[in-house]
Amino acid sequence: MRQAIYNIIDTKNSNNTIGKYYNAIMLLTIGLSLLPLTIKANHEWKYDIDNITSFLFLIDYLLRFSTADFHLKKGKASFLYYPFTPLALIDLLCLSPSLLLWNNSLKLLKIIRLTRMLRLFKIIRYSKNITIILNVLKKQKDSLIIVDVFALGYIFLSALIIFNVEPNTFPTFFDALYWATISLTTVGYGDIYAISAIGKLITMFSSLIGIAIVALPAGIITAGYMEEIRNHK
Amino acid sequence: MRQAIYNIIDTKNSNNTIGKYYNAIMLLTIGLSLLPLTIKANHEWKYDIDNITSFLFLIDYLLRFSTADFHLKKGKASFLYYPFTPLALIDLLCLSPSLLLWNNSLKLLKIIRLTRMLRLFKIIRYSKNITIILNVLKKQKDSLIIVDVFALGYIFLSALIIFNVEPNTFPTFFDALYWATISLTTVGYGDIYAISAIGKLITMFSSLIGIAIVALPAGIITAGYMEEIRNHK
Amino acid sequence: MRQAIYNIIDTKNSNNTIGKYYNAIMLLTIGLSLLPLTIKANHEWKYDIDNITSFLFLIDYLLRFSTADFHLKKGKASFLYYPFTPLALIDLLCLSPSLLLWNNSLKLLKIIRLTRMLRLFKIIRYSKNITIILNVLKKQKDSLIIVDVFALGYIFLSALIIFNVEPNTFPTFFDALYWATISLTTVGYGDIYAISAIGKLITMFSSLIGIAIVALPAGIITAGYMEEIRNHK
Amino acid sequence: MRQAIYNIIDTKNSNNTIGKYYNAIMLLTIGLSLLPLTIKANHEWKYDIDNITSFLFLIDYLLRFSTADFHLKKGKASFLYYPFTPLALIDLLCLSPSLLLWNNSLKLLKIIRLTRMLRLFKIIRYSKNITIILNVLKKQKDSLIIVDVFALGYIFLSALIIFNVEPNTFPTFFDALYWATISLTTVGYGDIYAISAIGKLITMFSSLIGIAIVALPAGIITAGYMEEIRNHK
Repeated sequence: MRQAIYNIIDTKNSNNTIGKYYNAIMLLTIGLSLLPLTIKANHEWKYDIDNITSFLFLIDYLLRFSTADFHLKKGKASFLYYPFTPLALIDLLCLSPSLLLWNNSLKLLKIIRLTRMLRLFKIIRYSKNITIILNVLKKQKDSLIIVDVFALGYIFLSALIIFNVEPNTFPTFFDALYWATISLTTVGYGDIYAISAIGKLITMFSSLIGIAIVALPAGIITAGYMEEIRNHK
Repeated sequence: MRQAIYNIIDTKNSNNTIGKYYNAIMLLTIGLSLLPLTIKANHEWKYDIDNITSFLFLIDYLLRFSTADFHLKKGKASFLYYPFTPLALIDLLCLSPSLLLWNNSLKLLKIIRLTRMLRLFKIIRYSKNITIILNVLKKQKDSLIIVDVFALGYIFLSALIIFNVEPNTFPTFFDALYWATISLTTVGYGDIYAISAIGKLITMFSSLIGIAIVALPAGIITAGYMEEIRNHK
Repeated sequence: MRQAIYNIIDTKNSNNTIGKYYNAIMLLTIGLSLLPLTIKANHEWKYDIDNITSFLFLIDYLLRFSTADFHLKKGKASFLYYPFTPLALIDLLCLSPSLLLWNNSLKLLKIIRLTRMLRLFKIIRYSKNITIILNVLKKQKDSLIIVDVFALGYIFLSALIIFNVEPNTFPTFFDALYWATISLTTVGYGDIYAISAIGKLITMFSSLIGIAIVALPAGIITAGYMEEIRNHK
Repeated sequence: MRQAIYNIIDTKNSNNTIGKYYNAIMLLTIGLSLLPLTIKANHEWKYDIDNITSFLFLIDYLLRFSTADFHLKKGKASFLYYPFTPLALIDLLCLSPSLLLWNNSLKLLKIIRLTRMLRLFKIIRYSKNITIILNVLKKQKDSLIIVDVFALGYIFLSALIIFNVEPNTFPTFFDALYWATISLTTVGYGDIYAISAIGKLITMFSSLIGIAIVALPAGIITAGYMEEIRNHK
C-alpha cells in the first residue's frame, strides 16, 4: 500500500498515470494558493481558498513523510532525516502560515503572507523543466560565482565612486548601490541619476565598461544552456 | 488553365516570372491596405484604398480557393478542407472587415480596424525570409517553451513579491506584472518603480538574477539562427 | 614621381614610412576639422581651422586624383572614373562646404555644417581596423538583411497595434514608431509609453517577444566577428 | 627569515596556511578601509578605522618592500625597481591619504577621500578569480581595442549629428556625448532625449544600428571567457 502511494507521489516516476494526475492537481493547488496574494481586498473566499489548499498541502506532506523510507532509502532513520531535507522544509514553511492563521493573530498576518510565496518554490518538485535550468546553474557554478563576484565588485566600485563624487544626489550609500545596479543592468528607470558633469562622466565610463561585466553571467547561463540541450540530443 | 494560375500564385515556385510579379503586387497591396491604419484623420481616399485592396484580396482568395486541389493534393475534398487551413483563415479574416464596412455599421468600426492588422500576417505567405526565422522557432520549440515558462515564472514571482512588499506603489497585481516585465526586459521606462528601501532592494536582486533568465530566449533564438545559416551553406 | 606619391597616399601599403606619417596627419586633420562642430559659439579660430583643414583635404584630393591610374589600373580612363567612386565622392562632399563658405552665404550655413560631418567617414580610408568590421558586415550581409527586415517589420507591427489601440497617447504614427523602437531596443527613455491597461498589456507582450527579434542583428554581428578573428589567427 | 615572510605574503603560493590567513586579513582590511567612504556623517570611529587600516597597509608595504629581491629576482637592484611597479604604486597611493590626514589639512580632504578608493584595486593582489578575467581581457586585447575604438567612434558620430541637428536640447557637446552613451548602452534614464521629429528619427536610426556596435565588446568578453574556462577543464 505505502509502495503504491510512493509510486504516485514520486515525480521522477513519469510512467504512473495516477501520478501524473496527482502532479497536475498539486501544480493547480500551488497556483490556486497564490491567488489570494494577487488581490488586495479582503474577500471571504480568500480564506476558503487558503483552507482548502492548505488542507491539500497537509495531506501531501503527510503522504511524503509516511513514504520517506522509499525516498531516502535509509530504513527507519529516513523518517528522522526527511523533515530536514530542503524540499521538506519548504513544504513545512508553506504549511505554517495556514496553521497559524487558524489562530487569527492579526499582527503577524503581513509577514505570514510573504512566507506563503514560498509555495511557488514547491513548483520545483512538480516541474521537470525547471530541473534542466537548475542543472545548468549547477554545472556552471564555479564560473558563475567568479563572474558574479566580479560583477558585484564592479557595481560596488561604481557606487563607491559616485557616492563620494556626487554626495548631493545620493543621500545614502544604498542609493548609490541602487543607482549602480539599475544603470549597469541597463534598466535605467530615470528615478536617480548623476547631475554634475563629473558625475555624468563617471556614469559614461562606468556604463561603457560595466555593461560587459554585468552581462557576463547572462552570457554564461545562455552558453551553458545551449551546451546542455546539445548534449541531450 | 487552373494549373497555370496555380503556378503563378504558388509562392514556392520561384522560377515563374509572372509569379514573381504577382508576389510583388500582393506584397504592395498588403502594404497599401495598412496605410489607412497609420493615419488618424478620416480622409475620403482611405475608403478608396480599402475598397481597392479588399477587391484584390478577394480575387487572390478566390484564385487560391479554385486551385486548392493542386495545393492540398486531396482531390475534390481539397475544396472542403482549404477554407480551414491557417493561412486561408487569415485571408478570410483580412477580407471580413471590408465586407462589413460596406454596411457601414459605425459601432463595430473600431474593432474591425484592428482585425485589418492581420493583413500584415499575410506577408508570411509572400516572404521567403520570414520562413527561415519561423523554421528556427520550430526547431528550438522545446527549448523555447521551457525557457519561456521559466522567464514568465520569474516575472510572476518578482511581481508577486513586490506587490505584497510595496502595495502602495502598485495599485493592482497587473501593475506589478507590468513593472516586472518592463524591469526584467531592461526597458525601464521609469513610469513605475519601487520607492521604499525594501522595494528597491528587491528591484536590485530581481534585476541582477532575472536579466539572465529573461535574456535566455533571445540567446537561444540567436544561437539557433546562427546554426540554421551555417547548415544552409 | 607620381609612383612615389601613390606609394605614400595608398593606405594599403603599410611598409612605407612616409605613408604612415601621411596617414597619421590626415587622421589628425579629420579630427581637427570636426572640432568646430562640437562648439556652439562663433569663434574666429573656427574659420581658421576650417580653412587649414579644407586646404589639406584639397591637396589630398588632388594627389589622389593625379594618381588615379595607379589606383584603378584602367589607364587614362581612370581619371574619368575616379571622381565617381564612393570614397572620392565623400572626399568631394567634405570639401564642398568649405568651398561654399568662402562665399559666406549665411542661409545655407546650417545645412553645410551637417555635410561637414561626412568627414568622419573619411576615417574609413585611413583606418585598417574599421575594414575588419566592414568585412564582417559584408560576409553576414544576407543574414543581416533578413534579420533586419524582420526586426523592422516587428517594430512596424508593434507601432501599428499600439497606434490603433491607444490613439490618445500617440498623436501620430511616427510617435508610435518612435515608441516601438525605443522600447524594443530596451532604451526606454520614458518620454512616451502606453497608459491604458490594454496598451500596457501590448507593451508587455511586444517587449517579451520583440527583444529577441531586435537583438538578432547584434547577435549575428558578434558571432560573425568572433569567427573573423578566429580565421585570422 | 625574509624567505619565510615572502612565502607568507606571496599570493601565488597557495600552499602556505599562514599565507592564506594573511590574505584573508588583508582582504578584510581593504573592505574595512572602504567602510568610512560609504557613510556621510563625520563619526569619530571613521578616523579610528582609517588609522588602524592604514597602519596595516603600511606594514604590508614595508614587508613587501623588504622582500622585493625574492619577488623581482634582480638582486639588490630589486629594491630600487620595486617602488615603481604598478601594484607597489597603488599600494603607496592608498597609504598617502592617511599619511596626509595626520596633518589634517581640511581643504585637501575631499580629493584625498577619492584616492582612498584605489584601495579596492589592492584586491587584485589578493583575489585569484579576478586574474582569470584579467587574463581574458589580455588575450582578447587586440579585438577589444578595435571594437572599442569603433564603438567610441560610433558614439562620437551620433553625438556629433544630434548636437548639430538639435542644438536646443543639448547645451554642450558633452551633453550630446552623454546622451549618445546612455542611449546606445540602452540605459536610457530619460533625463535627456531628442524632442524634435528629426532628432527622434536620428535617435531611432542611431539606436537600431548602434546597439549592435556598442554590444560587441560585451560579446567578445563573454565568448573569450567561455573559451578560457573550456581550456581550463
